[in-house]
Amino acid sequence: MAPKTKKKTKKQIIQEAAVRLFRDKGYSATSMRDLADAVNLKASSLYNHISSKEEILKNICFENAHRFLDGMKEVESMPGTATEKVESLLRLHIRTATGDAASVMAFNDEWRHLTEPLLSEFMALRKDYESRFLALLKAGMQAGQFQNIEPIIALHTIFSSMRWLYDWFQPGKKLTAEEVEEDIIRMLMKGLAKT
Amino acid sequence: MAPKTKKKTKKQIIQEAAVRLFRDKGYSATSMRDLADAVNLKASSLYNHISSKEEILKNICFENAHRFLDGMKEVESMPGTATEKVESLLRLHIRTATGDAASVMAFNDEWRHLTEPLLSEFMALRKDYESRFLALLKAGMQAGQFQNIEPIIALHTIFSSMRWLYDWFQPGKKLTAEEVEEDIIRMLMKGLAKT
Repeated sequence: MAPKTKKKTKKQIIQEAAVRLFRDKGYSATSMRDLADAVNLKASSLYNHISSKEEILKNICFENAHRFLDGMKEVESMPGTATEKVESLLRLHIRTATGDAASVMAFNDEWRHLTEPLLSEFMALRKDYESRFLALLKAGMQAGQFQNIEPIIALHTIFSSMRWLYDWFQPGKKLTAEEVEEDIIRMLMKGLAKT
Repeated sequence: MAPKTKKKTKKQIIQEAAVRLFRDKGYSATSMRDLADAVNLKASSLYNHISSKEEILKNICFENAHRFLDGMKEVESMPGTATEKVESLLRLHIRTATGDAASVMAFNDEWRHLTEPLLSEFMALRKDYESRFLALLKAGMQAGQFQNIEPIIALHTIFSSMRWLYDWFQPGKKLTAEEVEEDIIRMLMKGLAKT
């Protein structure tokens, strides 16, 4: 029996079209009119489903922030070494970038367009994630699993090292998502490891 | 005797002010008027020194491209292993980012605003640098010095891993440029190394 697939809601369809437009034209240059055209609706009907561009940006940013924080909570509650926990989170970063490229693009670059109070709320979630990641790095250094590197340098270097993937990876090309993931994990985990 | 310092030309002063404006406001949002105000000139006098915003962007982009290509030629002509050569180039990347942050910012992000034929010329220089870096990585893998990773993945991961520095590093804060450089080099070179 074929797996049951849930039909997408109109709101989901609009959000996916918006993500593609934000990626191709940038958030600022995308109008509600562009979005209405992309989903074959009149602008007036679009407003039945979505109140503004910023509502969509907010959804993308906060969905992604919670995806990473959920991953963090799962990792924090599991048994295992700092090495295993960090590797597990890096795989989440890489899979998100190869599997949902457009959303990550909007998440990496476009959150700066959020207005207050959303901007501060979003930055607090981002900061929370980074602090907890930093704690894992410090734990790994204290346990002698990771090289002694200034933790904030290790954090930024690692996060930044994956920030090209969403823009580069295309399914069906020479390398599979799994191959890309394994290569990046091998480089980053070896770069962190003490021995 | 104090070292002789060369007096900056008006053109250099204008270029440095432009780099700061491009960093703070972005290239698109910076007007010739903003630039004239920043260097205390009337807009009409500014045009005696510089013909357009794009002339400045062109100078920044091509100066940086040649800086990296000169570094590459020096490294290619020196004796030494692939490991030594790659490390030497990574140090050039890091020093450029910590020593001339604003220029690198413009170089990393703003070159997309160049118009033709400059855009194609610039992209060819960039591509040339990347191809030669890729050749060094492959040589290091063939010589058994580097892990066997898809070379293009290693290249993008390494280049991307340093792309936060220009935005983060501030001289006179907790960490010196030398400390930051050593930590990043230790992570990246260990991540590449076979053993």
